[in-house]
Order: sequence, then structure tokens, then C-alpha cells
Amino acid sequence: MIGLEEARARILAPLRPTAAEVVPLADAWGRVTAAALAARLTQPPRDVSAMDGYALRAADGGLGAALAVVGSAPAGHPWAGRLGAGEALRIFTGSVMPDGADAVLLQEDADCSEARVTVKEAVTQGRWVRPAGQDFAQGDLLVSAGKRLNSRDIGLLAAGNHPWVAVHCRPRVAILATGDEIVLPGEKLPPGGIVGSNAHALAALVRACGGAPVVLPVAPDDLARLAAVADAVRGMDMLVTTGGASAGEHDLVRPALAGRGLQVDFWTVAMRPGKPLIHGRLGEVPMLGLPGNPVSSLICGIVFLLPAIERLSGLPGEAPPVVQAVLGTPLAANDGRADHLRATLAVRADGVLVATAFPRQDSAMLRVLAQAGALILRPPYAPALPAGATVPIIRLDTLGL
Amino acid sequence: MIGLEEARARILAPLRPTAAEVVPLADAWGRVTAAALAARLTQPPRDVSAMDGYALRAADGGLGAALAVVGSAPAGHPWAGRLGAGEALRIFTGSVMPDGADAVLLQEDADCSEARVTVKEAVTQGRWVRPAGQDFAQGDLLVSAGKRLNSRDIGLLAAGNHPWVAVHCRPRVAILATGDEIVLPGEKLPPGGIVGSNAHALAALVRACGGAPVVLPVAPDDLARLAAVADAVRGMDMLVTTGGASAGEHDLVRPALAGRGLQVDFWTVAMRPGKPLIHGRLGEVPMLGLPGNPVSSLICGIVFLLPAIERLSGLPGEAPPVVQAVLGTPLAANDGRADHLRATLAVRADGVLVATAFPRQDSAMLRVLAQAGALILRPPYAPALPAGATVPIIRLDTLGL
Repeated sequence: MIGLEEARARILAPLRPTAAEVVPLADAWGRVTAAALAARLTQPPRDVSAMDGYALRAADGGLGAALAVVGSAPAGHPWAGRLGAGEALRIFTGSVMPDGADAVLLQEDADCSEARVTVKEAVTQGRWVRPAGQDFAQGDLLVSAGKRLNSRDIGLLAAGNHPWVAVHCRPRVAILATGDEIVLPGEKLPPGGIVGSNAHALAALVRACGGAPVVLPVAPDDLARLAAVADAVRGMDMLVTTGGASAGEHDLVRPALAGRGLQVDFWTVAMRPGKPLIHGRLGEVPMLGLPGNPVSSLICGIVFLLPAIERLSGLPGEAPPVVQAVLGTPLAANDGRADHLRATLAVRADGVLVATAFPRQDSAMLRVLAQAGALILRPPYAPALPAGATVPIIRLDTLGL
Repeated sequence: MIGLEEARARILAPLRPTAAEVVPLADAWGRVTAAALAARLTQPPRDVSAMDGYALRAADGGLGAALAVVGSAPAGHPWAGRLGAGEALRIFTGSVMPDGADAVLLQEDADCSEARVTVKEAVTQGRWVRPAGQDFAQGDLLVSAGKRLNSRDIGLLAAGNHPWVAVHCRPRVAILATGDEIVLPGEKLPPGGIVGSNAHALAALVRACGGAPVVLPVAPDDLARLAAVADAVRGMDMLVTTGGASAGEHDLVRPALAGRGLQVDFWTVAMRPGKPLIHGRLGEVPMLGLPGNPVSSLICGIVFLLPAIERLSGLPGEAPPVVQAVLGTPLAANDGRADHLRATLAVRADGVLVATAFPRQDSAMLRVLAQAGALILRPPYAPALPAGATVPIIRLDTLGL
């Protein structure tokens, strides 16, 4: 039995980012860049006006000066000439500054009648002018490789003239629920049957992490039918199984796949919930065998699968983010297994997070997990703690998990 | 000119959630429930074992007792008989407890040879038995209406036997960039042209909020072509325009749509960036006219469009979440417009967030916005603040925005 941190490190170590594919910029939100992206033009391409008004020479813009308006240049319609002394050009937000001009007289600071404009407020050189390259110059780095694109990045890449983006393929994660008792929602429930929830909960988790889940048909507790999974997962980026991971005579995942090239790295972790956890490789496909209890399966998903999918996506793939909270109620001392207590989360008036563990922590109680706002992390042999003590937590409410 | 909070309230007030549609549970992650969902079965349906071992009567399970093993009942294969005194049934995690049994002897606490099992550790009544309904009973509320489904909810709904879920339709948000100078990424850039970034940045924001963006072709500064937008947006849940929202002679959004039934509620807000902001209704379609500067457009998107999409999705639709940070550098006093300073965000060793405003806050500098981790919120007439003062911020890093 190995520790949680070692288990995660061994799961992540062999994972490599997926290959790159090219997607339209409009589909690139949430994807992870496969290469750095530099600006393909200078932004703005020329000096432009930041406001509606008049372009002029700053030297001509003293209070009370009157200038000849030689033309008008709306945004997108630059003026071809060169502005001379005593001349002004009507311009608008985004208009290219004409050659010779170095200042903008704001519309509200101007009196205009027919073809002359009078300065009501002296201009300042360069004021209200956005110089060429103010945002970025051609060749400047806009987005580095291995970054998940947010909406601001999408805007920046558009401005940098990228209609296409090379991103890592969404990791394809095959998900296999096992067990004679498992049926899918809406199917006829035989005596002793149970509606399986793990596969679709894990599929949703894979989706939340940016992966592409492939939910395989439920495998019964049958060596031959389990062994056939080895054929189904060729070309997948990962195989996740649930159930059948323990050491009982009906825990067939390891025996069934042993003959199909399963190489087991480890199969128990000192954690709760989720001690029986298989890590290995089925042929070329990394494999994670999660326990069958729904709470164990999902918590192991958060602890191990989430960083694994990130790693496959081209991100660093680190442990889920941990923040500090104070305890709402005392905790007993912990034993040798790292524990993950389901807890409600509240925000105190001073902004401090308060985590209160549910009294029942049974790993089959999915409703408690769904109601939880956080997991309180209890290291092996952590001492008893009073209410108000500070503890590390994983926030579930903000993870979309 | 109205204040930011009033503007947001007036934008949100008329919005109603979209109609419901039915989606497969496997596609329901991230969607918002249109109705409460109750359990359609009791979970577990019967008393089941939490471990591998032997079912027996607790009265028979004293230390050293020997019992007759009358059969084996793997999960999914319940035993039909009734367990008598002195009898034990081989069972496994998830196996239905046979009638008559009320305790489980763990496999590791049992010596089994041929058809007899000897108790090595006295059993406790009810221990290792998951009673029927431990997780939930038929009819129990699993997920309330108006909740965005996370992966745990998906698991819970699967367990509650819901193959389908009624969710609110993704709000369809038409996005229209306007301006003679705007071209799309990759298109030929004429003199005075600029690559438009607003439409696709806002489309990504709509997607991040769970909406369905519809990016309309760029509209030039032409009354007739702008007016035609009124036909294009029929049936949309919202129209968002960018550019042309100010009062200049080339700001044509209001004049062009006035003849097509645009009813303007307000068109300036005391905020920065983003003073020119149109709110109204184009026929039946709520309309938000955002400024053309990319930073103004995206920040107004975060401040107004994000809660609007949430409201349309069936969520409460509140202001983006605000947390507290301390200032990395001093701030000058603010004028009468609520400001949103782009800032880097760092976490101090003690866990406190430190926000440091960028020295340049020009509303055309998209790269600065993309590099920002937070927006520092500065209310109208906020006083100057020293480094270390506490300020409210909107975290951008965790919003996917």
C-alpha cells in the first residue's frame, strides 16, 4: 500500500500530452494551446484616435486657435493626404491619424462651423492618440504553449489575426463500469440490481476537465467479457474502470486483463475513500481502476483523474487546488489513511471559509457528496482538531465537479 | 447617466428563463435544471453488504461460533431463501442481505473450510450493512430546479434512475460587431482596417457562461445594413452589439434600429471602461449595446452579460462573485465613474490575495486584460488608498473568462 502523493506522482509520470489538432478560433475556448502564438500584425497597425474629434498639429492647438477642416476620415476610411499647418481633419474613435498630425482636439472641446474649427481647450501632444503597437507589435508573444484559452485569450488571438489555433486533442478517456448488479438509468432493474452512477458521473468529470469521455457498455463479472475491453480501448488516451478493483473472488478486473497485457504498477493506496485503486497500463493505454462505491469513485476521480486529464491535455497536471478553511465542528484523530471528509462550506462575515464535516461519511452516500461544498483533507495520523482549527480543503463548489 | 448597480438591475429585471428541453443525462453536465428532480427509486433498493464476507444473524456471531455456509450470493445475484439460526451466506460488496440476516462477518475475520465458517471477531448487529434507503428514498429531492449540474449531480441523478433531464435551453445570444474598419481574423486588412476581436471574445464569454453564441456577419456603418439586423435576431434570447454605441455621427446602432422598434432604456453608465452602453429591447429581443473598445466590451460583458446569461439560463443571475484582496501598490482617488482596474493577482504566503493594478489602463489594451488575474473594483469617488489596503476584486483567473 502506497501513500496518496506517491500514487498521484506514479499515475502522472508516464502521461504525455495528446497530439495537436487545428481548430477554428471560434471553437478554441477552453482548449489548451499546443504551441506559443505570436502576434501576426501590429495592433493598432497605425496611430489611431481614441476619441471623436479633430486631428491636428499640437503646435496649432492653442486655446482660441481656428483651423481649416480639410476633410473627414471615419474609422476604416483613412485620409490620404498630409495635414499642413493650420489644418484639422475630422476624425472618430479608431480613425487612423493623418500624417503630420500629432494631437487630437476632442469633439466636446471644439466649436465647428462650416469648414473651420475653433479650439476651446488647448490640446496636448499625443493625448487621445493610440500609437501604433500600443497593444502589441507583430511577433510579440500573445499566448504561451500549454495554456487553457479563456475568453480574453480568444479576443487577443483574434486581434493578433489568428483564425486557427493548434490545440491539444481532447484526451479520449474510456470509462468502464463493471459488475453483474449494474444497470443503466431507465433500464429494467432486476432483483439485486442497482442503477449504476459511476460511469456517467466520471464522464461528466472528464468533460468538466476538458476531456472526451467514451462510456463503454457495462461489463459483467465475467473474465472473457472483461478481457474483451482490451480490444475496445485501443487508441484511447486512458482507460478508467470502476468496481472489481479489490481482492475478492468477484473482483475480476486484474485477473481478466492480466492475460491481455495489463501491467499493474500498484493496486492499493493508503486513502479513504478509495483504498482499492489499480494503476497500470493495458498495452499502450494508461489505466486507472477506481473502486466501485460511487463516492470513492468520484473522489478518486477528483484526486487522480482530474490531474491526469490535465497532464494529457498539455497542462502541468497538478493536485486539485487546496485552500485553507476553519473547522465548524471538531474532528477526531485520523488513522493511517489520508481521508477526504465531505463537508459543507460557508463564508463567515470576515470572508473566512468554514468547513463542517457531515456526520456520516459512508462511501456509498452519493447524496451527501452532492451536497458537499468541500473535501476536508486529513493526512495520515492527523491529530484530533477542535472547532476553529485551520484545515486544508479542496473546494468542490468552484471546480464544476 | 445611471450608476452601475442600477444599470445591472435594469438589464436583469425583464429577463426570463428560456424554455425547457429534454436532454440525455450524459449531455446534461453544465446545464441548468428546469424542474426539481426527485429519486425514482430507493437507494440502495434493499439492505446490502458494504464488504466481502458472510451474512448471518448477529445473535449467531459470537467469537468462535461456527456456522453452516448455505450458499453464495454475489452482487446482482440475490439469494432467494431465508437465513436460519446457525446459518451464514457468502456475500460480497453490494450483495443483497438475505432475509433473516442482520450482520456481516468480514472475510478477514472469518475462517472458512468447506461448508463451515468460524467467527474470529465477534460481529455487531447492523455493522457493514447498508440499509435500504441509506442514500435516499424514492421521492426524495435529489436536485432542485434552477441548479447548474456538476459531475456529482450527474452521478446522483443516474443513481436516482433519471435517463433524461429537463433543462433550460442554452440562451441564444446574437453577437454583432459593427464598424467599417472591422475585418475578421485572417481576412485581408485594408488600409485603416483593424482585425475585430470583440465578437469572438464575447462569443467565448457566452460559451463560458453556458450560452449559445450566434456571431452575425460584421455590420458596416450603414443605416440600412444595421437596420436589417432586426430581422436576423428574431427568436434570439438576446442581442449584443459592439461599437457604434456612443453619440458620434458614425455611432449608428441607435439611429439605425430606432425605426425597427428599438426601445432604449438607457445608453450611458457611470463606469470605466464602458460609459457608452445601450440597454433596450429590439422588438421582443433584449438588447445590450456594448462599446467598441475591446477591453470595455469584455469588461461590460463580465459585469452585465454574464449575469444576464445566467438569468436567461434559469439561474439567479447575480453580479460576478467579489472577494477581498490587498493592494500591491497605492491607488489614486477615483472620479464619479465606477472603475475596473486590470490587475495582477498573487497569493501571499499567508494565503491573502494581493492585487496590483497595471500602470496602463487604456481600454484598447487587450493584452493587459489577458494578462490580468483580477479586476479591482473602485466605486465612484473612492478615496486614494495605500499599498496594503483591502479592496474588492473580481477574480478573472477562476471564472474561465
